[in-house]
Amino acid sequence: MNTTPGAASPASASTPIRVGIVGYGNLGRGVEAAIAKNADMSLAGIFTRRPSASITPIDPSASVFTIDALTEHENDIDVLILCGGSKTDLPVQGPELAARFNTVDSFDTHARIPEYFETVDAAARRAQTTALISTGWDPGMFSLNRLFGEALLPDGDTYTFWGRGLSQGHSDAVRRVDGVADAVQYTLPSQKAVDAVRSGTRPVLTTRQKHTRECFVVLEEGADADAVREAIVAMPHYFADYDTTVTFITADELARDHSAMPHGGFVLRSGLTGQDHAQIIEYSLALESNPEFTASVLVAYARAVHRLSQQNQHGAFTVLDVPPGLLSPKSPAQLRAELL
Amino acid sequence: MNTTPGAASPASASTPIRVGIVGYGNLGRGVEAAIAKNADMSLAGIFTRRPSASITPIDPSASVFTIDALTEHENDIDVLILCGGSKTDLPVQGPELAARFNTVDSFDTHARIPEYFETVDAAARRAQTTALISTGWDPGMFSLNRLFGEALLPDGDTYTFWGRGLSQGHSDAVRRVDGVADAVQYTLPSQKAVDAVRSGTRPVLTTRQKHTRECFVVLEEGADADAVREAIVAMPHYFADYDTTVTFITADELARDHSAMPHGGFVLRSGLTGQDHAQIIEYSLALESNPEFTASVLVAYARAVHRLSQQNQHGAFTVLDVPPGLLSPKSPAQLRAELL
Repeated sequence: MNTTPGAASPASASTPIRVGIVGYGNLGRGVEAAIAKNADMSLAGIFTRRPSASITPIDPSASVFTIDALTEHENDIDVLILCGGSKTDLPVQGPELAARFNTVDSFDTHARIPEYFETVDAAARRAQTTALISTGWDPGMFSLNRLFGEALLPDGDTYTFWGRGLSQGHSDAVRRVDGVADAVQYTLPSQKAVDAVRSGTRPVLTTRQKHTRECFVVLEEGADADAVREAIVAMPHYFADYDTTVTFITADELARDHSAMPHGGFVLRSGLTGQDHAQIIEYSLALESNPEFTASVLVAYARAVHRLSQQNQHGAFTVLDVPPGLLSPKSPAQLRAELL
Repeated sequence: MNTTPGAASPASASTPIRVGIVGYGNLGRGVEAAIAKNADMSLAGIFTRRPSASITPIDPSASVFTIDALTEHENDIDVLILCGGSKTDLPVQGPELAARFNTVDSFDTHARIPEYFETVDAAARRAQTTALISTGWDPGMFSLNRLFGEALLPDGDTYTFWGRGLSQGHSDAVRRVDGVADAVQYTLPSQKAVDAVRSGTRPVLTTRQKHTRECFVVLEEGADADAVREAIVAMPHYFADYDTTVTFITADELARDHSAMPHGGFVLRSGLTGQDHAQIIEYSLALESNPEFTASVLVAYARAVHRLSQQNQHGAFTVLDVPPGLLSPKSPAQLRAELL
């Protein structure tokens, strides 16, 4: 069907989608790696606020520019992937760059998504660009699964569990405690709570029952271990509502055992159909690299954004608005034959 | 954004979506039950080939008509859900009814989906109707998860496991064996194979390694048990490629222990990102009632079809073409605030 949203233009199969990366931390590096895994995409350049010579891309031949150079590359870029942080970078860059480029970002401050959407939407509509916000895995794939869960099983409850995974925000909070030289924090789903949900009993779970927190801390010389432990476990918002364990380790142990960035989690929907038939839907991720997986999601949505833009669908979008077929390099006919 | 595909018209919140059911077996009954769980939908009628008086709907006040009466109800129905079988009913009814109504169906003969799509698409485009084909869980939710898996992790392998669940087709095959009075067949995923896939090793698995089959058989009087067992396990296509167990039981035991219709399964994507980081995505269903869950999916997609039709998006669609937000009764703004 010619007007199907999933219909790719024939050109997209032959001309690579030119993707620019803005910001080159763990996420930007992950995006560079993910572009290399997609034959229909090419890296148009890495744009950074740092001196461009200070960046060492994975591919030594990749072009690195300062962010000001974006102006000169407006005609060389189909989609920009914004890899900055949600706290200070994206609230400024999101609307600013959506006014000049098609964009994809991973804005993940859940409570602020509605206002961020409005700001980016206004910029993108004025400029007739296409901007997909807040993708990745949560928000992103987990959001999609929360939506499918409640739409398919309206008589039900949704449960999201995270972990086992490294939480950057909680690690930073521990590092700010007096006497802490360095630290990492892992979030763990409680196996007992997960099992209760999987059993179909639809339990009501408190914050404390759903997750536990594990901190590995390197003390500053002369710091009081008990005082540090107490300051961590009693910290409001971050730890007070959880059962938290604190383990003191050396800087060498931290470097050796805790430099990976695993994460993951589950979205479960437990519902009833008919009189009393229990139905359980579970979506789970087990990720050895959180930033590389998030980057892979951003890159697949960059393909969708390029196609939406070619269909003159402008403004801000979220994963909830995008026909899934647009994520694949395959044609709708090929997808029907191979995947349905 | 006004042009977002996810934007529901304000009317859809207040006027119920009027859904007709064609065919009243297990699936049609499940659709009736699912409509009752969705406040924004109403049952416009059950249409059957049987004498309408022979049908006992779940809700005694539900209207039952013969299928010929559809003509008189063309203005009372927003979407028809086709609950017939894929072998003989849908190939005829799908294009015929898409020429007069918006439709949703669960056509599940995987190899024939492309030609079925073309036939229904031609009928729906001529009539300017909207027809969503081949939804449910496989094809349907499993297809979506195969798509997301390969789009997000292009360097990877996809594995689909089914069960533990009752297979209607295989149960029928066993019932056709000489000497069998009645039977049920369960498909089971091999735990060893599932564990190997979850470990991220990307094993190459044979048909025999992925699933086993369990038959519970009631013999006809005087039948030779060994001959029946041999005829079953050696049956080409159905059992010859699997490890199959055959257990003989009484008709009473069959009725007591094997009248439920559980099913489920997993779609796993195991892939690598960056240099060597293993990433596992798993989608799983544990269903106490296969037909009621399939029905729930059909009903959620009926909502999407109604909205696509209101947007003048005509022709045939599959789950891969539908923006997920259209499945929910909530507005796009509410979805962004609550689910992202």
